[in-house]
Amino acid sequence: MHQDNWNNLSLGSRTLTDLGVRELRNANNRLKIFSGTANPQLSQEIACYMGLNLGQIKIKRFADGEIYVQLEESVRGCDVFLVQPTCPPANENVMELLIMIDACRRASAKTITAVIPYFGYARADRKTQGRESIAAKLAANLITEAGANRVLTCDLHSGQSMGYFDIPVDHVYGQPVILDYLASKMISSDDLVVVSPDVGGVARARAFAKKLSDAPLAIVDKRRHGHNVSEVMNLIGDVKGKVAVMVDDMIDTAGTIANSAALLHAEGAKEVYACCTHAVFSPPAIERLSGGLFQEVIITNTIPVQEGNYFPQLTVLSVANLLGETIWRVYDDCSVSSIFR
Amino acid sequence: MHQDNWNNLSLGSRTLTDLGVRELRNANNRLKIFSGTANPQLSQEIACYMGLNLGQIKIKRFADGEIYVQLEESVRGCDVFLVQPTCPPANENVMELLIMIDACRRASAKTITAVIPYFGYARADRKTQGRESIAAKLAANLITEAGANRVLTCDLHSGQSMGYFDIPVDHVYGQPVILDYLASKMISSDDLVVVSPDVGGVARARAFAKKLSDAPLAIVDKRRHGHNVSEVMNLIGDVKGKVAVMVDDMIDTAGTIANSAALLHAEGAKEVYACCTHAVFSPPAIERLSGGLFQEVIITNTIPVQEGNYFPQLTVLSVANLLGETIWRVYDDCSVSSIFR
Amino acid sequence: MHQDNWNNLSLGSRTLTDLGVRELRNANNRLKIFSGTANPQLSQEIACYMGLNLGQIKIKRFADGEIYVQLEESVRGCDVFLVQPTCPPANENVMELLIMIDACRRASAKTITAVIPYFGYARADRKTQGRESIAAKLAANLITEAGANRVLTCDLHSGQSMGYFDIPVDHVYGQPVILDYLASKMISSDDLVVVSPDVGGVARARAFAKKLSDAPLAIVDKRRHGHNVSEVMNLIGDVKGKVAVMVDDMIDTAGTIANSAALLHAEGAKEVYACCTHAVFSPPAIERLSGGLFQEVIITNTIPVQEGNYFPQLTVLSVANLLGETIWRVYDDCSVSSIFR
Amino acid sequence: MHQDNWNNLSLGSRTLTDLGVRELRNANNRLKIFSGTANPQLSQEIACYMGLNLGQIKIKRFADGEIYVQLEESVRGCDVFLVQPTCPPANENVMELLIMIDACRRASAKTITAVIPYFGYARADRKTQGRESIAAKLAANLITEAGANRVLTCDLHSGQSMGYFDIPVDHVYGQPVILDYLASKMISSDDLVVVSPDVGGVARARAFAKKLSDAPLAIVDKRRHGHNVSEVMNLIGDVKGKVAVMVDDMIDTAGTIANSAALLHAEGAKEVYACCTHAVFSPPAIERLSGGLFQEVIITNTIPVQEGNYFPQLTVLSVANLLGETIWRVYDDCSVSSIFR
Amino acid sequence: MHQDNWNNLSLGSRTLTDLGVRELRNANNRLKIFSGTANPQLSQEIACYMGLNLGQIKIKRFADGEIYVQLEESVRGCDVFLVQPTCPPANENVMELLIMIDACRRASAKTITAVIPYFGYARADRKTQGRESIAAKLAANLITEAGANRVLTCDLHSGQSMGYFDIPVDHVYGQPVILDYLASKMISSDDLVVVSPDVGGVARARAFAKKLSDAPLAIVDKRRHGHNVSEVMNLIGDVKGKVAVMVDDMIDTAGTIANSAALLHAEGAKEVYACCTHAVFSPPAIERLSGGLFQEVIITNTIPVQEGNYFPQLTVLSVANLLGETIWRVYDDCSVSSIFR
Amino acid sequence: MHQDNWNNLSLGSRTLTDLGVRELRNANNRLKIFSGTANPQLSQEIACYMGLNLGQIKIKRFADGEIYVQLEESVRGCDVFLVQPTCPPANENVMELLIMIDACRRASAKTITAVIPYFGYARADRKTQGRESIAAKLAANLITEAGANRVLTCDLHSGQSMGYFDIPVDHVYGQPVILDYLASKMISSDDLVVVSPDVGGVARARAFAKKLSDAPLAIVDKRRHGHNVSEVMNLIGDVKGKVAVMVDDMIDTAGTIANSAALLHAEGAKEVYACCTHAVFSPPAIERLSGGLFQEVIITNTIPVQEGNYFPQLTVLSVANLLGETIWRVYDDCSVSSIFR
Repeated sequence: MHQDNWNNLSLGSRTLTDLGVRELRNANNRLKIFSGTANPQLSQEIACYMGLNLGQIKIKRFADGEIYVQLEESVRGCDVFLVQPTCPPANENVMELLIMIDACRRASAKTITAVIPYFGYARADRKTQGRESIAAKLAANLITEAGANRVLTCDLHSGQSMGYFDIPVDHVYGQPVILDYLASKMISSDDLVVVSPDVGGVARARAFAKKLSDAPLAIVDKRRHGHNVSEVMNLIGDVKGKVAVMVDDMIDTAGTIANSAALLHAEGAKEVYACCTHAVFSPPAIERLSGGLFQEVIITNTIPVQEGNYFPQLTVLSVANLLGETIWRVYDDCSVSSIFR
Repeated sequence: MHQDNWNNLSLGSRTLTDLGVRELRNANNRLKIFSGTANPQLSQEIACYMGLNLGQIKIKRFADGEIYVQLEESVRGCDVFLVQPTCPPANENVMELLIMIDACRRASAKTITAVIPYFGYARADRKTQGRESIAAKLAANLITEAGANRVLTCDLHSGQSMGYFDIPVDHVYGQPVILDYLASKMISSDDLVVVSPDVGGVARARAFAKKLSDAPLAIVDKRRHGHNVSEVMNLIGDVKGKVAVMVDDMIDTAGTIANSAALLHAEGAKEVYACCTHAVFSPPAIERLSGGLFQEVIITNTIPVQEGNYFPQLTVLSVANLLGETIWRVYDDCSVSSIFR
Repeated sequence: MHQDNWNNLSLGSRTLTDLGVRELRNANNRLKIFSGTANPQLSQEIACYMGLNLGQIKIKRFADGEIYVQLEESVRGCDVFLVQPTCPPANENVMELLIMIDACRRASAKTITAVIPYFGYARADRKTQGRESIAAKLAANLITEAGANRVLTCDLHSGQSMGYFDIPVDHVYGQPVILDYLASKMISSDDLVVVSPDVGGVARARAFAKKLSDAPLAIVDKRRHGHNVSEVMNLIGDVKGKVAVMVDDMIDTAGTIANSAALLHAEGAKEVYACCTHAVFSPPAIERLSGGLFQEVIITNTIPVQEGNYFPQLTVLSVANLLGETIWRVYDDCSVSSIFR
Repeated sequence: MHQDNWNNLSLGSRTLTDLGVRELRNANNRLKIFSGTANPQLSQEIACYMGLNLGQIKIKRFADGEIYVQLEESVRGCDVFLVQPTCPPANENVMELLIMIDACRRASAKTITAVIPYFGYARADRKTQGRESIAAKLAANLITEAGANRVLTCDLHSGQSMGYFDIPVDHVYGQPVILDYLASKMISSDDLVVVSPDVGGVARARAFAKKLSDAPLAIVDKRRHGHNVSEVMNLIGDVKGKVAVMVDDMIDTAGTIANSAALLHAEGAKEVYACCTHAVFSPPAIERLSGGLFQEVIITNTIPVQEGNYFPQLTVLSVANLLGETIWRVYDDCSVSSIFR
Repeated sequence: MHQDNWNNLSLGSRTLTDLGVRELRNANNRLKIFSGTANPQLSQEIACYMGLNLGQIKIKRFADGEIYVQLEESVRGCDVFLVQPTCPPANENVMELLIMIDACRRASAKTITAVIPYFGYARADRKTQGRESIAAKLAANLITEAGANRVLTCDLHSGQSMGYFDIPVDHVYGQPVILDYLASKMISSDDLVVVSPDVGGVARARAFAKKLSDAPLAIVDKRRHGHNVSEVMNLIGDVKGKVAVMVDDMIDTAGTIANSAALLHAEGAKEVYACCTHAVFSPPAIERLSGGLFQEVIITNTIPVQEGNYFPQLTVLSVANLLGETIWRVYDDCSVSSIFR
Repeated sequence: MHQDNWNNLSLGSRTLTDLGVRELRNANNRLKIFSGTANPQLSQEIACYMGLNLGQIKIKRFADGEIYVQLEESVRGCDVFLVQPTCPPANENVMELLIMIDACRRASAKTITAVIPYFGYARADRKTQGRESIAAKLAANLITEAGANRVLTCDLHSGQSMGYFDIPVDHVYGQPVILDYLASKMISSDDLVVVSPDVGGVARARAFAKKLSDAPLAIVDKRRHGHNVSEVMNLIGDVKGKVAVMVDDMIDTAGTIANSAALLHAEGAKEVYACCTHAVFSPPAIERLSGGLFQEVIITNTIPVQEGNYFPQLTVLSVANLLGETIWRVYDDCSVSSIFR
């Protein structure tokens, strides 16, 4: 089920010679990657792509749950990359990241890049009512305060959140990985319609549609008519007889996307695909996604899929090469944006 | 044409007695409002609602265009409110605001609130390509660095921008003013459809629709099919025979909204209204808006309408009472969010 | 088992008139106390002592574990006190505290005091080896960065940590509460010896001894002689026939204190008491403490004792009055240090 | 009229070999110079001296006047120099500079040097009355806050302003360029007198005099004797039969310098020269300067001379080589102060 | 010799009633003045003018010279004023001030105003050569970093230094005190000439001259003609038969002013007075000043005159009332600038 | 008396080749060491170990005692190390260090490391009573604010103080130097007992004991029994017939250590040694130490021993090689902690 079809993506002028140079530089040990405990397999895959070993680091929980971090090799003068998505358990993972950053700073790392494939609390990016926190900004402030010099992240919930940092942010997109995979499925472009499961995601869905054979767009508009009236879902646009590809940045409890899928079937969609970069998968997501509504659920591995959570329709694509390549370019001071041209 | 129908909006338990207390407090001179040169009429209206006089301030341009600011009355220990939308000429108005803040800080104001009815550069809130600035965040940083303690602003282009500040932001909505006005027009709710002129504004349009008799929603989806092919506009949703109310946060050159209006007429809309809070009105906005496509163009006075820019279909609503009330509540440490309940 | 004998502690010149004035001021609603989820019972007791109600606040976990905070009453212009020990689960409780602070800051609180009866990560206050984090300093930085204006805490593991903050810290001591309780037990001062369970706590034990009838001091010195040799515990000082009172700032897994108690019995101690302010009680603390080594285990309620963790020898004293009184004095700008004279 | 006589100034041990090394290094593309829109010709001359091309950058104004900046080549890991005098229109040029800096910071430049040949707002460096801004300090703060790591500027109005920055400032002097030019005029040193047009500039004039054959000094002291009495100008010192060289850091409206020149003629000066580094030339400067009072008006090109502003007595000297050489030395970590020995 | 003729200076509408109100407020103990060890007599005079007692503070030097500070009364919620000129021994006095500020901050003072009648290191306000410190800016940064909220100082060496702070600075002028005293001497205005002892002080001397019967101005221009040639002093202007009043902000070793006085006598001056605010009086200042060159040396008490340093021509005027009045106005949020109108 | 036995300490794999490479790099002049005036001999020894010359720097006191610093060689782009213990006169030395840092920052040093072998004010690391300063934290803040990027220090009074910095701190231990020296004395391990002169130093003494043949530990517990009762010293542990080695981080007035030594003799100790890293030696330390109580007093040269302060029992060990080696490793980005393995 775990599948990586990104090897063919053009990585510019990478050649064996380049890799040779890299081996050499690696001998200098100036680039170091450490993995937190949130997604060690992804970290391993990234290191593997880069031809590096993960740095030795001791991360443990004391009996009372406090985190202890010790770098087991020198990072003096090194460009350090700390791979830690702040997925659930978000608070544990955020604190672990902050403590890792603090340890690197005090150990005289030259630069510290927080590689956060999934940025937790990203949805808490505005006050929808009075007296709320804007936890996404808080998280950005904490990461900066702890001592990170740079952030590398993937498909932020809102692009504006990039501005929550004043340190440089390299923002990479998982969409090409998903689009490539979809392209390999050879669905006729006349059959396709891209669907945004809610009004907040229309711009994202439209960008996706444009790259997916310039497919038409449909939107699910969910409203509650008064206090005692149940919620009504309207479909804006047409899906009849089409292959509907629903796209979102993340799937959490899968409530919205499952309800939308039901509506799409009711409106005559032939097949329904769900795509997202970040598979948060809080209960009862698995029940909802594996219940037959979806032809296929396509996600990436920014967040690790837990043991019991695999189901037949699930396809996990890897962003490891994408992140590994980006780290190389950051380290080499090469253009990152050119990956996505 | 200039019209203020917000007097009837419920301002909670405001009574003559309250106003009496306020007169008294004003005698203490602890609350001071100063106007920059960007929108003096709005500042005057705000002061008028509050029963205060604007503070004396000298703002002049030297022969070389540099700005000189001197407060002509003491602000020591005062809660100072500086009213200055950063509308065009944006750079002049931003710098003037920053210099006003600096003068207040050095003159020992107790607190400085930047009242920015229109927040310029708000659209520059993300990097859509590599190596761009995020000027909205930069502007927020500059305002904070200059010494503002608080910001009061109106209909930010993206809610996420609130998080660009770590100082408190009071964000007020001009929508109620527009909704009240529309309500007074007695359009049958069966006839209404709310239209978002592009996919980026769908969430805003939907919120507006929900409050406007829970009207249905339509969306204009504009795409360019390849390099030499002209732009195509698709309407998602249905407007035939309806009164289409287009809503956006701002109208700049009016290109998108005018094209969308033409499409709506082509799709059979009975009448088309355009509503927005911020009327930037860069050329050729007036030509486009006054050319007969719109039944009425409804805006507020966060940005002053220039002399020659009035036209018969233009209706300007005032946010002065809304802002004045908010300033009172900020000064009195009363809830601001309760205005909007 | 839960017992509060601090009512008799002199609180200076507090009179009914003072309380009357307070009721009045409270009517102004300028002082607000909110409780996080870490120790709601302590928060309630503090509020009770102060004659106040806890502020309404919504704190919930989303399905994915992210924390959501909304203040359900206005805090504009208020002096806000947030009661949240950062006891286990430490990372959850730290993040919750930070998000509460952020919400208060954005809601225009006048001042925000983080009341942290137990300051988690306090033991991570130095690098004992290379490339470690100093998580106690990190935590202090995070709390400051989030927007706290002041900290009120209790028996920090090391006094130096106060300097980790540049905002004012009110540091209160739980020792008087424990000393008062011990005094009520009427142990003959000739029988007493105070014991530090390790060399790191000698200064604390000595201060305690000085106030406990100027009792003599003994120290347990634990060493490991080489790699394959088992640990040896030496007693420095004399406990034969004495009532040994072991004192520490916290009991975590209770390993050291239990081993020391066994040594004290072996060296002829008549009875052994254990006293501490912070009862972290990580497993297998309860087994170790309730196994018959201790005549009594005396703790305070800075950390809540979990349901199944009570045992017959356990005595829990409350610091609520101490903290409540301190909050009043902070709010009233009265001397805090005079409580401890 | 535009003339560059600085080629002969000793640039230390620069040889062809050095230049060769530079070509090489340039191939590494680690040094990048970008020009803002304030003085592109100067930027071009600087780049020319350095044997470099200006970096590709898109700077445009939107219809509403907001500035858009995009770097059109990667600056990752580069030492970036942004050439932008903040001359009139000062506010436009300041904001453009800040946005350029922000774009570079977010694009991961290694260091950002703001090259500000003329530092606008430099005269607003003190409060002469109560409640004024100190806009020069504000500007310094804004530049630092935006993300500049270093500043390179020319003849600051007051040397103290260097201290407004905590980032390093390289301050270069245009005087050698002017002194060299004057030397080439072969005026007999017995005939010379250096004149300060007001009491504020005496120290600058004296330093100039010392290097100009140790010429004597005279000062114009302008006073207003009471409210209804007209201004009186006194000359302190003697100019009869002398060639008077007036020197100032900048000429703005030219009022003071023109009045002083008239006085010098009245007091018997044979010829009057005006010299300054920064030619702000606000109206009616050109009328005043070209009206026959001056034998020659000698300026530099820190600020571009606008099309219609050339007149026969005007001589423009270039500081491009001086700035270019300084940039090389900054980039190469060579001593800058040694240029001026 | 010590003489205070400032009692007659108009302090606006100060009346007995005002003083009564102040006594009352003082009862609230919200304003506290503490004196460092640099100039306790001035502090005492200030307190005396204000009808207050100096706050109790323990400042001692340990055996190794480290400073220990303990506030002996609560400052919680108080507006604290710390009086400490940073005169010689400058480093001792600066550090003592910083430690006093730190103690106040940690003791929860509401605001901390550093009252620095003489600001040491003020002359180190620019780099005159490469690789120097700008110690005046450094001192400003240290004071801000330590936690001061505001500065009150007197006759800064350069006005630009005010901008070294971003916290508010109240800058008061000692000149009125000196001018009043000179006025009482009834020197005929026809006889007067004001002399600047060097070119750097011309602007200050001119401002003084303008207020002293609009007296004419003369300037001493000191130059060294080549390496082995001795220094030559030129007088620009005329002093023959006049009473020459030399004015400067400070007198340090008195070398320049004594040489200038000799020149004035040589040029026919009838009498020579020396005036300054800050009497640093480093050796051999007393020898130079008391040697007969001066009719009178008029200074203020911003710096204490040491025991053996009094001499017959010395007149010490007090700035205590001026500072005391300013502190009242700062505390009362009244205009400070109006004192000097 | 001055003796350096650290040459034999293993410095890892240092070889002639390494030194050769270093000579080369030194030619690049990227590493520069400057000495303040506090301990020039130690600086010279460090430079000597490193095969470097100290950088040229002018540090002088003006007549009024203000410090003037000018770097007499370029530091652009260099890694600068400033050696300045902040020993008595502490305030002079702290200010001199801060001004040196400021000069380096403004002169564009790449990094600035403050090498502070003895960190003054280190004992002021907590508030033992209300309203005290925490001067150790203040000093750390000042050093950071002045512009230091890193600190290298030796045997901090409390390990927690490392956390007072957020910049990296390299903390080296003088103990190995002292232990090596003691080892060379061949005292039988059965005879040894390590004594802590007070309860605050037990942990330090125990670490020392562990490395000194795992010697037993004794502690002096000094108490005052009531107000009019004289101080009583108790010995906890046994010293009869033993060679007592007292160890502390510093000796200031030597009161505690001398009293403790007397007690040890009274309790039957055969010989008493005193060891410390930092010899502050405030009067009457020399009298107390040279009075016959001590067999030998072993110190290091972090603080220079003043001329008259040598006495026969005094042994001064050098930490120059230790510091020099650490500086090399910091500069070379090698592990520092591995020195101490």
